[in-house]
Amino acid sequence: MIIVMKPNYTPQQLEGVIATVKAHGLTPHITYGVETAIVAAVGEFHVPSLDPFEVLDGVESVKRISQPFKLGSRQVHPENSVFPIDGFTVGGDDIVLMAGPCSVESRSQILETAHAVREAGANALRGGVFKPRTSPYSFQGLGEEGLKYLAEAREQTGMPIVVEIMSQTQLELMLDYVDVFQVGARNMQNFNLLRVLGETRKTILLKRGLSATIEELLMSAEYLLAGGNKQVILCERGIRTFETSTRNTTDINAIPVLKNLTHLPVILDPSHATGDVNYVTPIARAAIAAGADGLIVEVHPEPSKAVSDGKQSLKPEKFVEMVNQVRAIAEAMGRKIAPIKKSVSAGW
Amino acid sequence: MIIVMKPNYTPQQLEGVIATVKAHGLTPHITYGVETAIVAAVGEFHVPSLDPFEVLDGVESVKRISQPFKLGSRQVHPENSVFPIDGFTVGGDDIVLMAGPCSVESRSQILETAHAVREAGANALRGGVFKPRTSPYSFQGLGEEGLKYLAEAREQTGMPIVVEIMSQTQLELMLDYVDVFQVGARNMQNFNLLRVLGETRKTILLKRGLSATIEELLMSAEYLLAGGNKQVILCERGIRTFETSTRNTTDINAIPVLKNLTHLPVILDPSHATGDVNYVTPIARAAIAAGADGLIVEVHPEPSKAVSDGKQSLKPEKFVEMVNQVRAIAEAMGRKIAPIKKSVSAGW
Amino acid sequence: MIIVMKPNYTPQQLEGVIATVKAHGLTPHITYGVETAIVAAVGEFHVPSLDPFEVLDGVESVKRISQPFKLGSRQVHPENSVFPIDGFTVGGDDIVLMAGPCSVESRSQILETAHAVREAGANALRGGVFKPRTSPYSFQGLGEEGLKYLAEAREQTGMPIVVEIMSQTQLELMLDYVDVFQVGARNMQNFNLLRVLGETRKTILLKRGLSATIEELLMSAEYLLAGGNKQVILCERGIRTFETSTRNTTDINAIPVLKNLTHLPVILDPSHATGDVNYVTPIARAAIAAGADGLIVEVHPEPSKAVSDGKQSLKPEKFVEMVNQVRAIAEAMGRKIAPIKKSVSAGW
Amino acid sequence: MIIVMKPNYTPQQLEGVIATVKAHGLTPHITYGVETAIVAAVGEFHVPSLDPFEVLDGVESVKRISQPFKLGSRQVHPENSVFPIDGFTVGGDDIVLMAGPCSVESRSQILETAHAVREAGANALRGGVFKPRTSPYSFQGLGEEGLKYLAEAREQTGMPIVVEIMSQTQLELMLDYVDVFQVGARNMQNFNLLRVLGETRKTILLKRGLSATIEELLMSAEYLLAGGNKQVILCERGIRTFETSTRNTTDINAIPVLKNLTHLPVILDPSHATGDVNYVTPIARAAIAAGADGLIVEVHPEPSKAVSDGKQSLKPEKFVEMVNQVRAIAEAMGRKIAPIKKSVSAGW
Repeated sequence: MIIVMKPNYTPQQLEGVIATVKAHGLTPHITYGVETAIVAAVGEFHVPSLDPFEVLDGVESVKRISQPFKLGSRQVHPENSVFPIDGFTVGGDDIVLMAGPCSVESRSQILETAHAVREAGANALRGGVFKPRTSPYSFQGLGEEGLKYLAEAREQTGMPIVVEIMSQTQLELMLDYVDVFQVGARNMQNFNLLRVLGETRKTILLKRGLSATIEELLMSAEYLLAGGNKQVILCERGIRTFETSTRNTTDINAIPVLKNLTHLPVILDPSHATGDVNYVTPIARAAIAAGADGLIVEVHPEPSKAVSDGKQSLKPEKFVEMVNQVRAIAEAMGRKIAPIKKSVSAGW
Repeated sequence: MIIVMKPNYTPQQLEGVIATVKAHGLTPHITYGVETAIVAAVGEFHVPSLDPFEVLDGVESVKRISQPFKLGSRQVHPENSVFPIDGFTVGGDDIVLMAGPCSVESRSQILETAHAVREAGANALRGGVFKPRTSPYSFQGLGEEGLKYLAEAREQTGMPIVVEIMSQTQLELMLDYVDVFQVGARNMQNFNLLRVLGETRKTILLKRGLSATIEELLMSAEYLLAGGNKQVILCERGIRTFETSTRNTTDINAIPVLKNLTHLPVILDPSHATGDVNYVTPIARAAIAAGADGLIVEVHPEPSKAVSDGKQSLKPEKFVEMVNQVRAIAEAMGRKIAPIKKSVSAGW
Repeated sequence: MIIVMKPNYTPQQLEGVIATVKAHGLTPHITYGVETAIVAAVGEFHVPSLDPFEVLDGVESVKRISQPFKLGSRQVHPENSVFPIDGFTVGGDDIVLMAGPCSVESRSQILETAHAVREAGANALRGGVFKPRTSPYSFQGLGEEGLKYLAEAREQTGMPIVVEIMSQTQLELMLDYVDVFQVGARNMQNFNLLRVLGETRKTILLKRGLSATIEELLMSAEYLLAGGNKQVILCERGIRTFETSTRNTTDINAIPVLKNLTHLPVILDPSHATGDVNYVTPIARAAIAAGADGLIVEVHPEPSKAVSDGKQSLKPEKFVEMVNQVRAIAEAMGRKIAPIKKSVSAGW
Repeated sequence: MIIVMKPNYTPQQLEGVIATVKAHGLTPHITYGVETAIVAAVGEFHVPSLDPFEVLDGVESVKRISQPFKLGSRQVHPENSVFPIDGFTVGGDDIVLMAGPCSVESRSQILETAHAVREAGANALRGGVFKPRTSPYSFQGLGEEGLKYLAEAREQTGMPIVVEIMSQTQLELMLDYVDVFQVGARNMQNFNLLRVLGETRKTILLKRGLSATIEELLMSAEYLLAGGNKQVILCERGIRTFETSTRNTTDINAIPVLKNLTHLPVILDPSHATGDVNYVTPIARAAIAAGADGLIVEVHPEPSKAVSDGKQSLKPEKFVEMVNQVRAIAEAMGRKIAPIKKSVSAGW
């Protein structure tokens, strides 16, 4: 940490800073400049807030040197985190594909989608049963009924299921059904939820908030990792900017930046990142070309009848095309799409 | 709702749109233009998602006409919502002042602050006991111990207390202590939490999310109102933009925009909106000049020892100055700061 | 300047950094930390780019200590810059009001507006004759004809005129007519234009770009000041954010931030900052309450017939109301609106 | 255009709207809804401003139906624009690579870079001689001397040269030297400059402004096209957002969105879009995977000695790697990098 004094600082103020640095167990090194002085505070300092130093009299600014996240940092853990989910491995050379509808709407809808995406090459099935909707007047999800349909889809297809959790009160119910807990963008900083999920040993898919910085995403991952859960996947899903021609702005830079800063697997959600079915496939290709470890994509058998996100949901035949194009890019990158197990269930 | 067809739409596609409009109980009116056709769908349609129409073949875009919020709309309820909190009234002519530390840190800290802000003219005491912290390694709040200290401060000063709730699991405990529940920026779209708070009859102070639009803020208020809770205060607290010279960018436009769109009281938090004690007072003045109904301000007896938000916390003597300046602006606006009850407790 | 080495830096890399620091005429002071080393480079270093240091091998990051602007800095020049424009003084205790139409459209339109805003208390007349329009198919301004009408308005009312310059090729023509050159938001970083204006001795009204940081605004002012022109007024006019309910987001924080960082006068344009006539007056009040030294406001005798910006132009009678409300806020701030000279021309 | 009336509109106000619609040569079609009425205005209406309608009494909002740009629209011109630059073709199946230093610094620097990028497969040489620098104290470019060195580099390598123009006063000088005029981000809305460039018959590389919407970029292209210049290349180079871990945020969505909206070629500048040499290659790959027609990349023989943009400039050997990786992605997309002519000059 580096503390820059104001140009007109007094010796007493400098002493105050030195004392505070020492009080935090750090060693101060002072450099006197032309206009000001700077104090470098050396030692272990992991509390991310610089407030106790910024508020001191005579201080102009405080600059952090070390990263505020530890467990997720590639400096601390240089090797990629690679871990299995039921049937495939994430974070290694393989590209993983998660696909399915925004909301589970009915038994037939989810079963039909599951078989379709499985045949197209998907490794996991996504589907929401508790829906975070902007309006209280919108469809809020099927709840446990939806979980049962998802379980049936898993049994028939062999795919693990990825489901969003919105509240710790849903945890107990969901634990029996869910393979991967998704934390949605709006809950990225729901720290109570993160803390309880950090205590589970289920894989967590943590989506970046609409206006969360990359550093904040890594700090939220730190809540999960600090609980002992090492199976954390990060997901870029578009950020909010001034541009209105797409629902969100895909921060494609976040892919190589995250791969540089952290050892955790990084995937992209081209459905939310664009909000438009016409742009999902090009952005899916771009994500893999930028180095992403996988994709999570919305697929619906009949988007015009979807209760939510129809505009950004691929029809199954379009999903097949997307997979084929993504496969070509993956191969150009020297990677491949994760292979799928032989289908578990013959009948349907 | 207006549905614009693509320039090369087919008659079949137009018929499909007309059928879907009718299926939603709306009446279609078609206008044939030079390049395209538009379908105006007339009738009651309050589901905010336009997805079912946007995904239809041949549709270029869908534009909403009516507001997606109802209960909070000034169109529906033209008069200001005015309601009492213990000791004062919000939403009327009076300006209300809520003040106190970011976090309750100790009994003496909160009691000292409470008396100081009361003497300066504050109407309510704020203080956090469950803290949403970016880092798992930061102080997370005193929990119930903090609530007890707040209750004691209320007893001594007569001020109602404003406390942030982060999760519905905290509700039962807090109900016994808290007068006003604050929903923080990070939880503005924690819909599960909003739903349970909508069922209480406590006043809710709903803060705008860092990157929430004004419309989204009103939709979140709708969750509270739809539960039957009519005592909702909206709070602008700065949004996230590209500008880094302040912690957030105060969206001062939001004050007159909200006063125009909704009947609910609107206040501003100049502490978070600037993040810097040097800018709190000018922005507090600006808020009142723009038409805000009150302020919520961070005050700490010794900011350099605050466990959180020290940099943006006013010392009590600076808060007195702020109140005096705000009073002058309020009077120029033909308003006044809400009067305080005579102090309840003589001793301390 | 502080240079932070990467955790795994080599002694050779550190020596390379030290050599580069010395090559720039600066003195290096090295501090060895637990994970890294930092080099403080002491001395005069005003080139704003940190690139020559950031690219060195082994360097993690480079942080600036001193401000990149000099002539505009309040550190260098602690007193407010106060200077006269024809008939009034800007930057002192008085609030100045500039008003007029977006575009000069006809002789009668500008004369009518000039008299109306003068009677309402305006100190200067604004009006555009070269218009930066997003579309090549829109009205582009009256050019010299418009300048002649403005000169006539000045003669009749005694008000100096404020006109936007878009290109250095317009300078020679405009010099004969214009009292204050306005540099519009889109030209804030048109450095060629800034350089030639810095060589004039006319007052320059420099508007902040839509997505310019406060520091960038001050760097653009530096171009003007470096040319020897000390009569520079800064103007906040709203920035571009994700919020769409107003045309721009008024960065009200910029007012106290700028007043803190620079000695130059700071005004606000509530017309562009909101884009909506319903919000101009509240934001004008807020600007003065936040400490602005003046306002520039669009006024049009018949907004529904304006060729540009009609939606954000006040009718003269609404401008009178705005001035009255602003006057009350100015008085609450211990300031007053700059007095106007007796009208020069009796007849019209 | 669709005009939505306020809920409490009067018959007189509706008549006023109808009259104004007719006055603009459009035909009004009225639909009476439950709460309001809407007026669809049918006919040719290409002036992009909706102001004359928005300001009418009783009007709630006005929504555009047709695109405000014409000449650049794919609706009007469905086929890709494909045109030759000296030695290669842009906008067709081939991917074009433009590379070179941010600034021309010396004869040897530009000649060395030119040969290096040519050998690596670049099609055109970029290099700035007039530099738009945030600070007046920074290097501002070599001017005509730099143009002469570029001309020599062209002669030796056969590559056309791409140079930024900042002002119409530079045009005459540059016309003799330059093959492709680059309009930088800060000048995207310098309409005077666009207009004079539209009258040339040189290829224009138009960069998107930092905070320009995609629609605004297309409107600026319209200035060029309206002058009769059909050789316009659009360039995404990153937008300004809240994220600070990269210099800008690459709006990768803009690639497929632009390819959908316009027939003009679209390229990406991964150097400015990331600002960091570590991220240039992944984002270059992503751009091609998303469908871009080319790249413009900063390359410098010794980035640590570059006078500008050293941090984001690839060394020649890293550029070779980038080209190889981009080639693999291009082939996966069924495209190839544009072939280069045999070297013109043997000696150097």
